[in-house]
Amino acid sequence: MDIGFIGLGEMGAAMVANLLKAGHTVRVWNRTPEKAEALAAAGARAVAAPAEAFTGDAVISMLADDAALREVVDATLLEHAPRGLVHVNMATISVALAETLAREHAELGLHYVAAPVLGRPDAAAAAKLTIIAGGAAEAIDRVQPLFDAIGQKTWRIGALPQQANVMKLAANFMLAAAVEALGEAAALLGGHGVAMRDFLDVVTAGPFPGPVYAGYGGMIAEDRYEPALFKARLGLKDVRLALAAADAVATPLPVASVLRDSLLEAVAHGDGERDFAVLGKVAARRAGRA
Amino acid sequence: MDIGFIGLGEMGAAMVANLLKAGHTVRVWNRTPEKAEALAAAGARAVAAPAEAFTGDAVISMLADDAALREVVDATLLEHAPRGLVHVNMATISVALAETLAREHAELGLHYVAAPVLGRPDAAAAAKLTIIAGGAAEAIDRVQPLFDAIGQKTWRIGALPQQANVMKLAANFMLAAAVEALGEAAALLGGHGVAMRDFLDVVTAGPFPGPVYAGYGGMIAEDRYEPALFKARLGLKDVRLALAAADAVATPLPVASVLRDSLLEAVAHGDGERDFAVLGKVAARRAGRA
Amino acid sequence: MDIGFIGLGEMGAAMVANLLKAGHTVRVWNRTPEKAEALAAAGARAVAAPAEAFTGDAVISMLADDAALREVVDATLLEHAPRGLVHVNMATISVALAETLAREHAELGLHYVAAPVLGRPDAAAAAKLTIIAGGAAEAIDRVQPLFDAIGQKTWRIGALPQQANVMKLAANFMLAAAVEALGEAAALLGGHGVAMRDFLDVVTAGPFPGPVYAGYGGMIAEDRYEPALFKARLGLKDVRLALAAADAVATPLPVASVLRDSLLEAVAHGDGERDFAVLGKVAARRAGRA
Amino acid sequence: MDIGFIGLGEMGAAMVANLLKAGHTVRVWNRTPEKAEALAAAGARAVAAPAEAFTGDAVISMLADDAALREVVDATLLEHAPRGLVHVNMATISVALAETLAREHAELGLHYVAAPVLGRPDAAAAAKLTIIAGGAAEAIDRVQPLFDAIGQKTWRIGALPQQANVMKLAANFMLAAAVEALGEAAALLGGHGVAMRDFLDVVTAGPFPGPVYAGYGGMIAEDRYEPALFKARLGLKDVRLALAAADAVATPLPVASVLRDSLLEAVAHGDGERDFAVLGKVAARRAGRA
Repeated sequence: MDIGFIGLGEMGAAMVANLLKAGHTVRVWNRTPEKAEALAAAGARAVAAPAEAFTGDAVISMLADDAALREVVDATLLEHAPRGLVHVNMATISVALAETLAREHAELGLHYVAAPVLGRPDAAAAAKLTIIAGGAAEAIDRVQPLFDAIGQKTWRIGALPQQANVMKLAANFMLAAAVEALGEAAALLGGHGVAMRDFLDVVTAGPFPGPVYAGYGGMIAEDRYEPALFKARLGLKDVRLALAAADAVATPLPVASVLRDSLLEAVAHGDGERDFAVLGKVAARRAGRA
Repeated sequence: MDIGFIGLGEMGAAMVANLLKAGHTVRVWNRTPEKAEALAAAGARAVAAPAEAFTGDAVISMLADDAALREVVDATLLEHAPRGLVHVNMATISVALAETLAREHAELGLHYVAAPVLGRPDAAAAAKLTIIAGGAAEAIDRVQPLFDAIGQKTWRIGALPQQANVMKLAANFMLAAAVEALGEAAALLGGHGVAMRDFLDVVTAGPFPGPVYAGYGGMIAEDRYEPALFKARLGLKDVRLALAAADAVATPLPVASVLRDSLLEAVAHGDGERDFAVLGKVAARRAGRA
Repeated sequence: MDIGFIGLGEMGAAMVANLLKAGHTVRVWNRTPEKAEALAAAGARAVAAPAEAFTGDAVISMLADDAALREVVDATLLEHAPRGLVHVNMATISVALAETLAREHAELGLHYVAAPVLGRPDAAAAAKLTIIAGGAAEAIDRVQPLFDAIGQKTWRIGALPQQANVMKLAANFMLAAAVEALGEAAALLGGHGVAMRDFLDVVTAGPFPGPVYAGYGGMIAEDRYEPALFKARLGLKDVRLALAAADAVATPLPVASVLRDSLLEAVAHGDGERDFAVLGKVAARRAGRA
Repeated sequence: MDIGFIGLGEMGAAMVANLLKAGHTVRVWNRTPEKAEALAAAGARAVAAPAEAFTGDAVISMLADDAALREVVDATLLEHAPRGLVHVNMATISVALAETLAREHAELGLHYVAAPVLGRPDAAAAAKLTIIAGGAAEAIDRVQPLFDAIGQKTWRIGALPQQANVMKLAANFMLAAAVEALGEAAALLGGHGVAMRDFLDVVTAGPFPGPVYAGYGGMIAEDRYEPALFKARLGLKDVRLALAAADAVATPLPVASVLRDSLLEAVAHGDGERDFAVLGKVAARRAGRA
């Protein structure tokens, strides 16, 4: 396929590399052009303006947040996009903005697919992302080959794009809740002289298998939060989005409120760029042991 | 081995059945004698007083809570127990009481092993409990055959019995945190018209494998909390114990505080005897949707 | 003075009435013109466009929220305003928007004074508002006669307008915290059969004098939340703004998080238009007694 | 009257001094006899055993906590007390223990009056305590002269002694909530460069008059927590008791849960003996500014 790709951060760059490997033609654009040039060496075509990426068979966007997306994907860009273009937004954005974008695209005869992903940069590099796709089935059908190139599994969750965003936010909320629980458990254990490492051995062999408990728990056990696979600052961003999505439907999320406070505390102590397993450090600090 | 067994609730009765199957001689005592008689049919020897169980090679206790334990295992019982007896307490009790019992046993020349278990009655029946054992290595060595008969794995976590209790409480705290997160996620998803079932498919195939998320999440998805595998009332008891253990070492556990409030709300609404996945119902009620 | 006034809700209309009584000339504008016409009978001059109010010696704005304010006070309006005009914004808006407005006004040679008020509509009607004024001293000097006409006391808290907003939000946060505490206390007392009325007699005669505890506590004691002096929906708005202002400086506010959840629960149960003393009802519902 | 007095801490000693001034005969007992001897100089009669105090017209107890009380006021003491004796317990104890004591006294023909007080040692010294009395009216009538000697006002709140304890705990919970709110407000203000002192001037002149906000707020504004009028450790004790009383009637108190966590954090950082206004320091620390 002939596609555009906007936003070449760590995740985006890895996705483009896999799209190229799968034989797709990719026009890439990034605010800072160096990143586009680096991918040019791998076969991508760097373009000078977002509008040049916003054409062809489809365009994927993977920008940092609502503000970054809205600055690029504005009314002018959409009005000049070719009718029938499928825009796949794979970034984690607010549910409110997803709703707005879906409406704006529809009014202009464009297709909007929300396809946030589960998986960190290492999964992106290995083409092992989990893709949660929301939008019209025929639009998703058209971009399925792209999903196949970058992910291991696509979940189609319905016709309303924003529902994919809700699902992604709910998943990241659960992730953050698990990490906070690990951090609090570690603080409790530490207070009684029990090694977090031993505890992890027990629970990961039992009720909590899988990489989340072993991985984040391991960082907490070692009190080592770098390199950051998922930065505390970005975890906070997602928790804020989950709270906002819940607020919009008058739904209290008390654990998410705790997560927000704990992550703010991490940021306040200079740990925003560390892995969000620093929630373990926050819990230890509260107990006077960090 | 020739052992005593005190406390024949659902868990205890299943353990005794497996001990009998493994060829051990078991003298059983229970406050209400009917349960002991039922096990007599399977080969157990029902005794009339706790003291008759508190003798032999070892004695296992599996009573409901601190109060029930303290009422049976009092100073008189311990003073009359044969020196060298190994008392294995497999119930989930407070860390404070575990410390007290360890000291009292040591003063009288008795061995105290704390061996709380992970696993619900179905795991107990299948002899697939996970056993977390704390206490002197030689004492644990002596009762290891008993553990082998009722569990699939014994973790030895150190010489201080109460540390096994801390670990058990931390594990159950994490369990409750996962269930609360599932409940809040379901409320968020429900507010946006996304099916919890679909969400579970995505996250259990991805970051959250294992029976906890699939099992409790499934109950929440179906809004069905019976039969109760783990009652809300008992989940609340364990969260209280975790908070007390944390309080003793000046450790705040904000998520545990949320859990306590949510479980109290479940109990207040008459759901104490339902599965503690009713946390999903609590979250939905807060959002005006239950 | 010859002033404009934008926003004639319950608070704004009462302020205008007092400004007219004090002899000021007031050009009034409101989105729905009926309210302006009603005040015309009292001597105000209804104008057809915000720009006609945004002139003279000063202009006061009292709009519902950030969005309503931003829709009226946009770039075009400011560019056409006469240099040197003092714009006094007395509404409770976000700290972020106050910062933006302060900068925009300064760039255009306009004066921006943030002057949020403490006091409900009854205090506004009685010209007994407490005014918290932030901005350049000389600008505040010029509008002090207006403050004297509508308030009983003006606190000048510094040169940065947005600091007045922070102070207002902190005050309303404390108010909401007191009401939530009253609600939880009532739930605790109710559980033990103690009358909230008796409790209020004790604490308002002792540690908690003043109208807040007696007033909101009285509504909770009577379980009567209408007429609403301060609506739950608006209390929630202010708590959200306090959380946002705290988030901007990486400051966790755990009690504000609880307030947000409790107020969301009130709104979810259809009590958004009732007095925010309905926090008492939320607390009782959690305990299964509402 | 001829009375006994048990427990000569700071509060108890001040009460005895006022009882002596009012002309009562007071037999005093304290675990460490030095304190009793000091009061002997003022006219009290130091006795060697609690039983010697537990006789006469009435006996007042003012011991530190449940454990201290239970150790002195045990079955033996009560069995030997003269029928008809009125025991007035003025300490803050658990609701559960108050219930137990009421029952035990009644069974032995003794009168039990719960009369916890509002007011710190300075109020006790000035005979300005507020007394919340629960128990049989005729029993309270008999000890009213004692209350008149040590307090400025007695509130009679009903026939069940434990209800006085609930009321006291609810009052202290509200107090702690106000202090936490002050601390969080200070953290928010501090993040935006607004002086807490200025804020306090505004709110204490307005919605929050009275000594609580001015007093604790002032300590937070000055970041000075000594001398401690109400120690964090004791504030934590009372919050625990409020949570336990609420737990007994299945009532969630989310703000009390936050208070518990914040006070635990204060204790964990070595501030347990400082005034519980250190909640302001906890809030600042969370924001990285303490």
